[in-house]
Amino acid sequence: MPLGEEKNGASDRSIYVNNPHLDSMTDDILYHFNLGTSTHDLPAMFGDVKFVCVGGSPWRMKSFIEYIARELGLSEPNAEYPNICAGTDRYAMYKIGPVLSVSHGMGIPSISIMLHELIKLLYHSRCTDVTVVRIGTSGGIGLKPGTVVVTKQSVDSVFQPRLEQIILGKPVVRSTELDGELAEELLQCGKDLAEFETVIGNTMCTLDFYEGQARLDGAFCSYSEEDKQSYLAQAYAAGVRNIEMESSVFAAMCKLSNLRAAVVCVALLDRLKGDQLTSSHDVLNNYQQRPQVLVGHYIKKKLNASKKR
Amino acid sequence: MPLGEEKNGASDRSIYVNNPHLDSMTDDILYHFNLGTSTHDLPAMFGDVKFVCVGGSPWRMKSFIEYIARELGLSEPNAEYPNICAGTDRYAMYKIGPVLSVSHGMGIPSISIMLHELIKLLYHSRCTDVTVVRIGTSGGIGLKPGTVVVTKQSVDSVFQPRLEQIILGKPVVRSTELDGELAEELLQCGKDLAEFETVIGNTMCTLDFYEGQARLDGAFCSYSEEDKQSYLAQAYAAGVRNIEMESSVFAAMCKLSNLRAAVVCVALLDRLKGDQLTSSHDVLNNYQQRPQVLVGHYIKKKLNASKKR
Repeated sequence: MPLGEEKNGASDRSIYVNNPHLDSMTDDILYHFNLGTSTHDLPAMFGDVKFVCVGGSPWRMKSFIEYIARELGLSEPNAEYPNICAGTDRYAMYKIGPVLSVSHGMGIPSISIMLHELIKLLYHSRCTDVTVVRIGTSGGIGLKPGTVVVTKQSVDSVFQPRLEQIILGKPVVRSTELDGELAEELLQCGKDLAEFETVIGNTMCTLDFYEGQARLDGAFCSYSEEDKQSYLAQAYAAGVRNIEMESSVFAAMCKLSNLRAAVVCVALLDRLKGDQLTSSHDVLNNYQQRPQVLVGHYIKKKLNASKKR
Repeated sequence: MPLGEEKNGASDRSIYVNNPHLDSMTDDILYHFNLGTSTHDLPAMFGDVKFVCVGGSPWRMKSFIEYIARELGLSEPNAEYPNICAGTDRYAMYKIGPVLSVSHGMGIPSISIMLHELIKLLYHSRCTDVTVVRIGTSGGIGLKPGTVVVTKQSVDSVFQPRLEQIILGKPVVRSTELDGELAEELLQCGKDLAEFETVIGNTMCTLDFYEGQARLDGAFCSYSEEDKQSYLAQAYAAGVRNIEMESSVFAAMCKLSNLRAAVVCVALLDRLKGDQLTSSHDVLNNYQQRPQVLVGHYIKKKLNASKKR
């Protein structure tokens, strides 16, 4: 199937599921969320969601909801944010006002399960006009550690903006195009804040952390430091500024379901200078908060603008 | 690179890392475990490990260590099993006597990060003669729900026993061969127990849970019920009895590092009859304990045999 053939020609901002079978199901169990259409009133629980932030670590997604609650003036003293997916340890989910925060684990398959169920959740909840942002960590290429990268294009291991999805044993190629306007708005938020460096660039999405990212410190390594540097230099020349493990399927699935989507990741290290994460726990922790701060600023700006209208 | 070219010709049971760069590192940080060679005395902590059980869910891997402690007579009243990876939420790790229990999240990339760091941990700890078993959940094909499948071969979406690993942008094909003798021993343990059905068969390993496994209930579905049934029938004809998302890279990486490895998964449902997990929480919970019980029996048998020697 050629790139983009599955694209929706939608002009409104409804959430699409592209699955004729769903309408004939009397009940839909979102197994990995421990939620379902017959056990939960999804429109009442989630109908007001306008922003979904997703990230690998459950702890980080809990800290994000606490942060955004404070930023939006929605936090109350001693407020607890219960995990909506409490009956499972596959993912964690938190909500405050129009903001949903969901963890997705590590890697394309893990985030893909979460996104299938999130897209169905938003669809069943009859949400409209939803923006989804992945806030994550990554390895930078030629960047100062702590720099935040807003993804222009998510590219594969040969620097192409595509994802190969296997369906019934056959490859289907999907576009990993993200929302250009949203990326520019997020870049502007980084400039407004002026608390840390924010850049826009391509993000390479890989299937593993060690050999797939040309690291020299895995259990296996069949290449030299020179091979590594040459590969990373090719990536840099193709506009790649950071490497992570979820953006391609995130971009492809959001595009197929008409979700406005962006990827904002902090670079924890410069891969041209090393492979191991040697910075202190406190420094890494501070870096990991930067995408949260940037996206928090964006959400506040959007909500204030819509109040004024 | 042809299949098997990376294979070790080892006759002893040392753990191999295949990475000449590791020896020149003064310190090795196992980032996703929050452990390291300069911060932890790994040989003292892990040198006695002979069995490693891995599974997706952190809760399940905690319940496994509690179970195996009781089975081996190593549990003490009110004993707590602290999470060895306490400073991170990426993976959870527990230990009792010679048994290590580690969670790996969902999907090939997530388990691959864990295995790189586990193999290095066993290597730095100078462990020998280690057996690693993945205990997991899966979808069955033509099996009664609750049946336990010991994997003969882990196969890809076109039913071949191989894994394509991308290194520096180029595909390298690796064998997913498992230890045949160990699989037979585990099958025998299932027969000894006679508490549930245990079979041996091929396991298909996919990159996603919905489209990659021919489910009709994802956010996207471009095929019919007939297409699905035809694909699953082809899989069955190729010896596939269950489908999960980690076995191929698990098999490939264990083989490369000289670890005796097996995959034991319970089938939570029969995919020929449906896609959704409609069984009650209690029933599914009971099913998930079966691989634990089987592998617990195997470990006890092996430890008793070595005591007698």
